[in-house]
Amino acid sequence: CSSTTPITATLFPGDGIGPEIAESVKKVFTTAGVPIDWEEHFVGTEIDPRTQSFLTWESLESVRRNKVGLKGPMATPIGKGHRSLNLTLRKELNLYANVRPCYSLPGYKTRYDDVNLITIRENTEGEYSGLEHQVVRGVVESLKIITRQASLRVAEYAFHYAKTHGRERVSAIHKANIMQKTDGLFLKCCREVAEKYPEITYEEVVIDNCCMMLVKNPALFDVLVMPNLYGDIISDLCAGLVGGLGLTPSCNIGEDGVALAEAVHGSAPDIAGKNLANPTALLLSGVMMLRHLKLNEQAEQIHRAIINTIAEGKYRTADLGGSSTTTDFTKAICDHL
Amino acid sequence: CSSTTPITATLFPGDGIGPEIAESVKKVFTTAGVPIDWEEHFVGTEIDPRTQSFLTWESLESVRRNKVGLKGPMATPIGKGHRSLNLTLRKELNLYANVRPCYSLPGYKTRYDDVNLITIRENTEGEYSGLEHQVVRGVVESLKIITRQASLRVAEYAFHYAKTHGRERVSAIHKANIMQKTDGLFLKCCREVAEKYPEITYEEVVIDNCCMMLVKNPALFDVLVMPNLYGDIISDLCAGLVGGLGLTPSCNIGEDGVALAEAVHGSAPDIAGKNLANPTALLLSGVMMLRHLKLNEQAEQIHRAIINTIAEGKYRTADLGGSSTTTDFTKAICDHL
Ligand SMILES: CC(C)[C@H](C(=O)O)[C@@H](O)C(=O)O
Ligand SMILES: CC(C)[C@H](C(=O)O)[C@@H](O)C(=O)O
Repeated sequence: CSSTTPITATLFPGDGIGPEIAESVKKVFTTAGVPIDWEEHFVGTEIDPRTQSFLTWESLESVRRNKVGLKGPMATPIGKGHRSLNLTLRKELNLYANVRPCYSLPGYKTRYDDVNLITIRENTEGEYSGLEHQVVRGVVESLKIITRQASLRVAEYAFHYAKTHGRERVSAIHKANIMQKTDGLFLKCCREVAEKYPEITYEEVVIDNCCMMLVKNPALFDVLVMPNLYGDIISDLCAGLVGGLGLTPSCNIGEDGVALAEAVHGSAPDIAGKNLANPTALLLSGVMMLRHLKLNEQAEQIHRAIINTIAEGKYRTADLGGSSTTTDFTKAICDHL
Repeated sequence: CSSTTPITATLFPGDGIGPEIAESVKKVFTTAGVPIDWEEHFVGTEIDPRTQSFLTWESLESVRRNKVGLKGPMATPIGKGHRSLNLTLRKELNLYANVRPCYSLPGYKTRYDDVNLITIRENTEGEYSGLEHQVVRGVVESLKIITRQASLRVAEYAFHYAKTHGRERVSAIHKANIMQKTDGLFLKCCREVAEKYPEITYEEVVIDNCCMMLVKNPALFDVLVMPNLYGDIISDLCAGLVGGLGLTPSCNIGEDGVALAEAVHGSAPDIAGKNLANPTALLLSGVMMLRHLKLNEQAEQIHRAIINTIAEGKYRTADLGGSSTTTDFTKAICDHL
C-alpha cells in the first residue's frame, strides 16, 4: 500500500526524556519518508475529572479517532486523587494485550546471544483489578480477577500473532497448581484457542519454572502468553536478557484495531533535557507501529538502520557504554537509512 | 558444642530420586562423623485424614518433636481429595520462612560468576491462601491475603539473618504500586523492622524491575525478602543463574526453632532408581541443617568437600554434563572430606 495521503497518528512524547526521544523518532521517520502526520498530546498539569488522571480526555479521544499512536514514558506524579497514567490508558482505551518482542541485538553484547521471543501480556485484569480492602486490622486482601472473555481474547491474539509471524510455539505461563480457579480458567481458555491452531505447538509452563528456564536457556521459548502480573514480571526479565528496557519495544493492542506502541522504560528525570537519552526503545516501538499500519518497507528500513548503528558501535548513548548525544545517535541512524 | 549424644533429625527421603539422594546424604554425613540419628518417614500410599494428604500425621509429629529435619522431593500424586505435600508441610508445621542461598559454584560455569544472594520467602499466605471462587460464570477470583503478623515475622527473620550472617543489605521485593494495600502492608512491616537494624541498609525494589536487575547484574543484591509468590518466582530465577534447582539448597524456618531443610527440585521419576541423580541440592540443604544445629565445623567440612568435588570436575552427574553415578559422585565427596 503506497500511501500518498498521510496517516494521522497520536504521539504522546511523555515527560522527562520523553520529548527528546520523541524528537528522535520524528526525525528518523521524516528522513525515511514515512507518511505520518503526528497529532501530539502532552501529559497535562491538572487532573482531568473524566480520566481521573493528568491525561486529558482529548488525548484519549485522539487515539480512539486515529486508532494508532506512539507513547513515550509518563511518570505518574506522586499524590492523591488520580490514577497511574499508564493504567488509565490501558483501561480507557481497552488495550487488552501488551506485546513485547525481545531479541538479542547483533553487536550489543550481553550474557545472552540467542534470545528471540515475544511476550504477550493480558493487560486489563488479574492482579491489576484495583480491588483491595482491609478485612480486619492487620489483615488485607487483594482480588485477582480472571475472566473467560479477557483470557480468550488475549489467547486468540497470541495464537493469531504466532501464526501470522511465522512462530511455531505458544507457551501459556501460569501458577495453576496454586491458583487453580483463576489461572486454571486462563489455561482452559488457552487450550480452547490452541485447538483452533493445530499448526502451532502449545505448552503450559509454571511461572517459577519458566523464569528458571529463561535465565538458563531463553532459546527454549518462542511466544509466551500470560495473565497481567506474570506478563509484567516476565517481560521485564526478558528485556534484561538483551540489555534492558532502553532497547526493547512494546505495543498495546485494543479492540477495533487500535494499537498504541510504547517505550516501557522510565522517564529518567535525572538526564532529562540533557540530550543524553537513548531513543532506541521508542524508535523500535515506532517500528512496531509501522508494521501494524502495514508500512512494512519503511519499518524494515528503519529497523535495519537502528540495528546497524548500534552494531557498528561508533555512536552509542551513555547507557550503552558510549558517549554520543541523542541527536548524534539519531543522526547516525538517519545516515544509515 | 562437641556433641557426644547424637541429635535426632527427621528425614523425608521423598519419592522418585529421593531415596537415592537421601542415601548419599547419609553416607557423607556418616563419613564426616556428624552426630545425627535419622528418623526416617516415607510418603504414604493412603491419604491420612488428619493431614488430608499422603503425608502421615506421625511424620509431622516427628518434625515437631525433633524440631529439625531434611526433606527430599515429594511429587504430589494427581487426583482428588488431598493437598500438595509441600504445602501441607508448610501449613501444618507453620514453616513461615523459606531461605534459599544462591551462589555461583566455583568450577561450575554458567553465564554468571558473581551471584551471592539469599532469598527469604514468606511461606504461609499471600497468593497461596487457597481462597478462590467463581463470582459468576466466566468470572473467577483468587484472594491474596497479607497479614501484619506474618509480614513482621518474615521481615524480622530476614533482618536477623542479615545481621548474623555478615550481610549488609535487605531488599524488600513488592508490587505496591499496583497492590497498594497488600504489598503496601508488607512494605510497612519491613520498614518497621528495618528501623531496628540501622546497621543494615534497607531498600525496596518493584518485582518487575528486580527481575530485570537480577538477570543484568545479580551482584547488586544481597538479602531479598518478599511475599510468597514473588519468593517462589525469584528464588527459582536465582537458582537458574547458578545452574538450577539441582544445585541450590533451601531451608524452611518455623516457630520455636523448627527447621526443615529441603531440596526444592522435582522427584525426576524418569531417572529414579537408576543411580543417576545429582544429590547436591539435598547435600547442601543438609549443610544448612547442620549450620542451624550449630554443627558449623562439620557443615563447613562437608560444604568444602561438595564444592571441591564439583570444581575438580572429575566426578559429575549427567545433569552437570558428566557421566558419574550418584554413588561415584558421593564417594568422591567422601574422599574429599
Ligand atoms: C508502572 C507500572 C504500573 C507498570 C505495570 O505494572 O504494568 C509498568 O511496570 C509496566 O510494565 O508498564
Ligand atoms: C510445587 C509448588 C506447589 C511449590 C510452590 O509453589 O511453592 C514449589 O514451586 C516450591 O517452590 O516449593
